[in-house]
Amino acid sequence: MIVAEATAYRRRFDRLLERLPRLGVDAILFFEMTNIRYLTGFTGSDGVFILRPDKGVLLVDGRYITQAGEESPQCEVVQYRDKIGGIVSALGEKEAKRTGFEAAAVSVELHEKLRGKLAPGKLIPLTEALTGLRSVKDDREVSLLRKAVDIATEALLQVIAWIGPGVEERMIALEMDYRMGALGSEATSFPTIVASGMNTALPHARPGFRKLEDGDAVVMDFGAVHAGYRSDETCTFVLGGADKKFREVYAIVKDAHDRAIEAVRAGVPCREIDRIARRVIDKKGYGLHFSHGTGHGVGLDVHEAPRLAAVSDQVLEAGMVVTIEPGIYLPGHWGVRIEDMVLVKEDGCEILTKMSKELKII
Amino acid sequence: MIVAEATAYRRRFDRLLERLPRLGVDAILFFEMTNIRYLTGFTGSDGVFILRPDKGVLLVDGRYITQAGEESPQCEVVQYRDKIGGIVSALGEKEAKRTGFEAAAVSVELHEKLRGKLAPGKLIPLTEALTGLRSVKDDREVSLLRKAVDIATEALLQVIAWIGPGVEERMIALEMDYRMGALGSEATSFPTIVASGMNTALPHARPGFRKLEDGDAVVMDFGAVHAGYRSDETCTFVLGGADKKFREVYAIVKDAHDRAIEAVRAGVPCREIDRIARRVIDKKGYGLHFSHGTGHGVGLDVHEAPRLAAVSDQVLEAGMVVTIEPGIYLPGHWGVRIEDMVLVKEDGCEILTKMSKELKII
Repeated sequence: MIVAEATAYRRRFDRLLERLPRLGVDAILFFEMTNIRYLTGFTGSDGVFILRPDKGVLLVDGRYITQAGEESPQCEVVQYRDKIGGIVSALGEKEAKRTGFEAAAVSVELHEKLRGKLAPGKLIPLTEALTGLRSVKDDREVSLLRKAVDIATEALLQVIAWIGPGVEERMIALEMDYRMGALGSEATSFPTIVASGMNTALPHARPGFRKLEDGDAVVMDFGAVHAGYRSDETCTFVLGGADKKFREVYAIVKDAHDRAIEAVRAGVPCREIDRIARRVIDKKGYGLHFSHGTGHGVGLDVHEAPRLAAVSDQVLEAGMVVTIEPGIYLPGHWGVRIEDMVLVKEDGCEILTKMSKELKII
Repeated sequence: MIVAEATAYRRRFDRLLERLPRLGVDAILFFEMTNIRYLTGFTGSDGVFILRPDKGVLLVDGRYITQAGEESPQCEVVQYRDKIGGIVSALGEKEAKRTGFEAAAVSVELHEKLRGKLAPGKLIPLTEALTGLRSVKDDREVSLLRKAVDIATEALLQVIAWIGPGVEERMIALEMDYRMGALGSEATSFPTIVASGMNTALPHARPGFRKLEDGDAVVMDFGAVHAGYRSDETCTFVLGGADKKFREVYAIVKDAHDRAIEAVRAGVPCREIDRIARRVIDKKGYGLHFSHGTGHGVGLDVHEAPRLAAVSDQVLEAGMVVTIEPGIYLPGHWGVRIEDMVLVKEDGCEILTKMSKELKII
């Protein structure tokens, strides 16, 4: 297991090294902790990683020196007292003349401080170049994502058995978080959404004090975390029984979801998946009520590349893990969202989430 | 209540307006969501606020347009399709020639995109100037902090009654989070720390699978959130009974904590509070084992200005709410940390946290 992990980090390191000439830099400075974890295995909350052709250098403060040595034996681990000083001293050597950095993860303030202490032109902002860094998952990553899904599924089954009229949305969310934790989740993948009745018409509803009533739609959007990897799934249930209109809208969303999943395979542009889901909903006259993208990559972050949206210029590759989550939201009435995580393959995809998305009356 | 809130936002707005000439800018662009909430009342997860002499302009995307109008009636609320375009169009008018922005909250990438579409020299990075923006709390803020403390205290009392040998650290943390939530906390103030036995020697321990044993030290660092305001408190208990050495170290930390609190009053430099706590611990020979600062401000963020540390150049003011949290950590053995939140007054301070910090055997 440890050998496999070390190999994975080595492979990621080498893959980036190959890109250096094209990026026009001699080294890359990483600040984004999920990227640092991905490249080194270090799980602390603060640190800096420098990828150089000869080695990886992990800079941490005193709190993390032991942990970094244990988690990232393949790196040179260096302790700093203050971060700016640590970076400047690590970059001070003449080998790395042009050092790229994650332009989306460095503040103007930090950049100004660093720039003032380094040779002019030494720091090169990298933007889109690093966006897809983590989007293709290896087997180990997929197995960690499967485990996160398993935890969330088991917790959901326990919670469903317990939900009924009179229970508050926020208590369902708390129960879900508690049970995922008890089953081994390290945290929630994101703040759990539980919306009921009219609140389901809000795609980003926060769980509140509303008590469930018979006949309510209930939208639950939730995820567990295992070894840093996050699951993401949405189920829409009905309490007691659903009327005709609800069944009709549910069927449209389910159809959009199913057709999008059928279209997922390596080589397909991400915007094409969004177009397929959107067309199903448009055709039935609900286009204006599907107010968000169709999906996104998921891994160490719950939202990462690629985006499955109309404006996306990314293309699906084997090994990507993405969500498919169309929805219809009818303001003042209710909403439906159905979300699965799928693993992209050369000739199709595998649904990683476990819950059936047939309409469930609870 | 709503009138009082509106007055509070107006006062904060006016206080910043007065600073504009000194900062050399005609307007300020805010990206930090806690600052935006502080200045406008808007609680969404994304948006931009522009403070101009004539008005405040709150820019949000389609998800938040209704919510922003309800939460921030005193602002002009504008919807954008993409954030860059929205900012550029809002700043395009000729009135604001020099617009300050939070240099710590804007990435190099975002800054480059904005700069490319605005007149040269229009964007002025502001750094230290905005650091203390939220550090002095008004009465309403203090009452919200008290409520957060109340929730956390009640949850802790419930959990203490339930802790015993054989219980895992992570289950105590989950129980704490669940009970704070059930009592009305909106989230945890930060990931709850529960450390036991040798793990207490790590100031930032993550709750793990270790089961509590008789004689263990147990460090719990936790906080609740009420209307966005966060509490922060640390208790160190002992399970069953404490030996002489532990009692001795606990007494030293308690003494450092008490003397620091006795010294808190308006006009005292923050580093002086740190010096007082540190001197108590130094004198007993444990100086090297007190490896962090003595405290920090707390409010909408769990860590905010001022810092109570040796390098701090801030001065305590009446209305600031800060933590006092000295600790001694003996690697391979155990650690003790004692933390209270205090409200700075002209002639002293009031301890906001409720739990007695006398050594408690549970």
